[in-house]
Amino acid sequence: MGSLPSDSLETLSLCSQNPLDHDEFRRQGHMIIDFLADYYKNVESYPVRSQVEPGYLSKRLPESAPNDSESIETILQDVTNDIIPGLTHWQSPNYFAYFPSSGSVAGFLGEMLSTGFNVVGFNWMSSPAATELESVVMNWLGQMLNLPKSFLFSSDDNAGSSGGGVLQGTTCEAILCTLTAARDKMLNKIGRENINKLVVYASDQTHCALQKAAQIAGINPKNFRAIKTSKATEFGLSPDSLQSTITADIESGLVPLFLCATVGTTSSTAVDPIGPLCDVAKKYGIWVHVDAAYAGSACICPEFRHFIDGVEEADSFSLNAHKWFFTTLDCCCLWVKDSGALVKALSTNPEYLKNKATESKQVIDYKDWQVALSRRFRSMKLWLVLRSYGVANLRSFLRSHVKMAKYFQRLIGMDKRFEIVVPRTFAMVCFRIKPAAIFPHEGENGGEVYLIENQVNDINAKLLESVNASGKIYMTHAVVGGVYMIRFAVGATLTEERHVTSAWKVVQEHTDALLGELNGNTTNLGFLD
Amino acid sequence: MGSLPSDSLETLSLCSQNPLDHDEFRRQGHMIIDFLADYYKNVESYPVRSQVEPGYLSKRLPESAPNDSESIETILQDVTNDIIPGLTHWQSPNYFAYFPSSGSVAGFLGEMLSTGFNVVGFNWMSSPAATELESVVMNWLGQMLNLPKSFLFSSDDNAGSSGGGVLQGTTCEAILCTLTAARDKMLNKIGRENINKLVVYASDQTHCALQKAAQIAGINPKNFRAIKTSKATEFGLSPDSLQSTITADIESGLVPLFLCATVGTTSSTAVDPIGPLCDVAKKYGIWVHVDAAYAGSACICPEFRHFIDGVEEADSFSLNAHKWFFTTLDCCCLWVKDSGALVKALSTNPEYLKNKATESKQVIDYKDWQVALSRRFRSMKLWLVLRSYGVANLRSFLRSHVKMAKYFQRLIGMDKRFEIVVPRTFAMVCFRIKPAAIFPHEGENGGEVYLIENQVNDINAKLLESVNASGKIYMTHAVVGGVYMIRFAVGATLTEERHVTSAWKVVQEHTDALLGELNGNTTNLGFLD
Repeated sequence: MGSLPSDSLETLSLCSQNPLDHDEFRRQGHMIIDFLADYYKNVESYPVRSQVEPGYLSKRLPESAPNDSESIETILQDVTNDIIPGLTHWQSPNYFAYFPSSGSVAGFLGEMLSTGFNVVGFNWMSSPAATELESVVMNWLGQMLNLPKSFLFSSDDNAGSSGGGVLQGTTCEAILCTLTAARDKMLNKIGRENINKLVVYASDQTHCALQKAAQIAGINPKNFRAIKTSKATEFGLSPDSLQSTITADIESGLVPLFLCATVGTTSSTAVDPIGPLCDVAKKYGIWVHVDAAYAGSACICPEFRHFIDGVEEADSFSLNAHKWFFTTLDCCCLWVKDSGALVKALSTNPEYLKNKATESKQVIDYKDWQVALSRRFRSMKLWLVLRSYGVANLRSFLRSHVKMAKYFQRLIGMDKRFEIVVPRTFAMVCFRIKPAAIFPHEGENGGEVYLIENQVNDINAKLLESVNASGKIYMTHAVVGGVYMIRFAVGATLTEERHVTSAWKVVQEHTDALLGELNGNTTNLGFLD
Repeated sequence: MGSLPSDSLETLSLCSQNPLDHDEFRRQGHMIIDFLADYYKNVESYPVRSQVEPGYLSKRLPESAPNDSESIETILQDVTNDIIPGLTHWQSPNYFAYFPSSGSVAGFLGEMLSTGFNVVGFNWMSSPAATELESVVMNWLGQMLNLPKSFLFSSDDNAGSSGGGVLQGTTCEAILCTLTAARDKMLNKIGRENINKLVVYASDQTHCALQKAAQIAGINPKNFRAIKTSKATEFGLSPDSLQSTITADIESGLVPLFLCATVGTTSSTAVDPIGPLCDVAKKYGIWVHVDAAYAGSACICPEFRHFIDGVEEADSFSLNAHKWFFTTLDCCCLWVKDSGALVKALSTNPEYLKNKATESKQVIDYKDWQVALSRRFRSMKLWLVLRSYGVANLRSFLRSHVKMAKYFQRLIGMDKRFEIVVPRTFAMVCFRIKPAAIFPHEGENGGEVYLIENQVNDINAKLLESVNASGKIYMTHAVVGGVYMIRFAVGATLTEERHVTSAWKVVQEHTDALLGELNGNTTNLGFLD
């Protein structure tokens, strides 16, 4: 068919080195491994919460990208000098804030393999192993959680026709997908013109991911019900409250659509009673999603499994393996009973993706189970975590965190100035300096309780800020039932008992200083404003 | 304050080794680097498209997770035996399918640092460096693209009050966020009860991400306009067609909302004329998003920049750095002019995330610019790519891909059996065996052209399947204007001229065989059914 075009070699002067050269990959890759190993070795010594001021980085970096290449040595020096001071160290053993982001060697290695292969697993064809490993590990983890078979893939199914699991990035996406599926299922029944009648239910303790998903899915903000909870139910959603809210909505001509029940709320790890809530919801054909983002992991331990009892009546269930399951961000595990509803709401079928495997209906195309078309090979990291540690060790790790939280709770119990605000259920303790420690004589005299509560809240906020500003440990706060409390969430992988012991000493020292200051000036608390 | 609880040491028997032990991290990390370096060294020898059958993996793996830990050596052996055969090798130099997923050493290292630090950068406070580095690199890349200042952060702004860039996972998410922002901005004006009147516009060549985003955002599927394109405009969207479609919708009482214009469509890398389309759209207050997922990267080269001329009139612009910019999946760069609209549509403000930095309004909380709350430190990998290679080399890499595509085009031109179906614009060539090579006498006799076109399509599909089944190279197809064409997309990082030369030989060999078979049996084409 003729000789090669004569100018091809001339015009194809490639750069001297290919950006994926395997020798350079090896050289630089080993450097980064050592860099990160040193980071883990030293992470305990860094201030946990970053101490930089807003805008610190743009002052240090050039205003535009370099024209010429820079060496990895230079870049790593800048990571040390400019990036690490601006990190809040989620991997520090002294990190007790928010919920953990629990890294592990296996999770990291899995992400490396996934990134190294860098396949785009939108459908089966685009990399069969990415799809099939995901289905396998989702069944493994589903079994570990003792999820009902209706949530798992069965070898009898046609692919994607019934239950199964999928890895999403985050709970927000998982909820958005299930809510969209529920919405379209309902609108197909009652007509799209009724979209503004659809109502979404949750407790006032539910994560803001639900509100955001509802906003995106076009649910009328007026129809978002954050049902009030109280100390009486330990801030779990009461089935009676759900029932009366639904009844009122139906009387107003609205259409109940979706309930998000939480196992382990963000503020206080409260647990909504899944079974009784499903009993109410199912009367109205409401899609029930169980969000166990944080606490779901613990349910692989038999002693915690009862917290998700009733899940067999729910429509979908999710947990974040990147929170408390040693799998690096992001990795949200979602199981659904009716994958067909997901696929119906989220599928697209352009010509350029058509292929024989899809047409055979023997495969899953996970692009139709999620928001995005492109998807990373996330199952690799979950597979490595499950295999590197095994079920027995994973249970043991989680139990060690719960034990450390119990230990912290006992330490609090030994200091009369403090109280536990809500009962500890998993590995998080919610506590505060109690009013009597601040106003020792108020209990005797009565007095303006409301004003006192506000001041107690302010003092606890001041304690938290004082502790965090020290950089020694990092905790965050929540407010439930009007009470400001400090959350102590154990779960950073490197945390050991000695870190809990030290953390408690830090809290005590800052409390000593704060209360000492107050005792010198009990009549004027104006500085707390 | 009393001594420590006496049972604490007894009950805290941790596992023998911490899952984030730095010595073990170092040992296993180095193993994986060598494993992946060897993978890149050998990837050329693997069949590009996986040759496994549906269900291959579940037959090889156990039905449940192991109870005890397994060694990394065992796991890597299984990756080699069970996973690699199930991969479609997007990093192979013989990969020319879909669009590239261009890995690089720098992109990989950036992902390692991001994964190693494993911070959850939902707001500034949760890790200032993650937020600030993102703003910096989005300004860098915006400048490289010569985006107007209205899309960039300015030091004069209050944070988040005007233009700027954000890293999303994928274009689907970027479009969903901008569409939701546009939707809520409009509904706040005309009332939520009018949600079913909102209309979304695009060409029939637009990526299915838009349709999916519209479905999720609750746009009435009846109001999704995929406006027909034709060969006359090289499959770009005609402003006249847009105008007449909008006019008809307004006459029907509908409300024009959103236009997605594409620079480099998936089927044929067609370019919608952004400026003239904006001129039409802006008369109606339509939000214009420019999706340059694939071709946007090329626009850092001055000779390609004109393809996004007119972007100054658009409202948002996105490209996928994980496609053709050496940054591993996932990394979609989105710039918007009115970040306030995004924040208004996507923000949540729960008590447990409140902090002083947010309240100061001096910082960006990127959680309000995207679907998910949690977010990875994606800017790290883009920063490493920009610095490791520098602007000059990046341009040179992209140009080398374009040159290789031109070279492939010339090779095609030398073989009279083939034709280029649509003009090549970037680094993708769309070609087919032409009708005259299959039916050499039809041109003279006239004949049933429609039937012939169908058979030509079938034969080209057969050629593609034959080539892909060989495992030697991997290409995919598209259909535009009824013509089935084979897409040859250059851009895998390891591809060099010799791979293009070999690829063409593979295509010719399979064509020889196919046409030979046909010539022996020209009267009965039934086997092609």
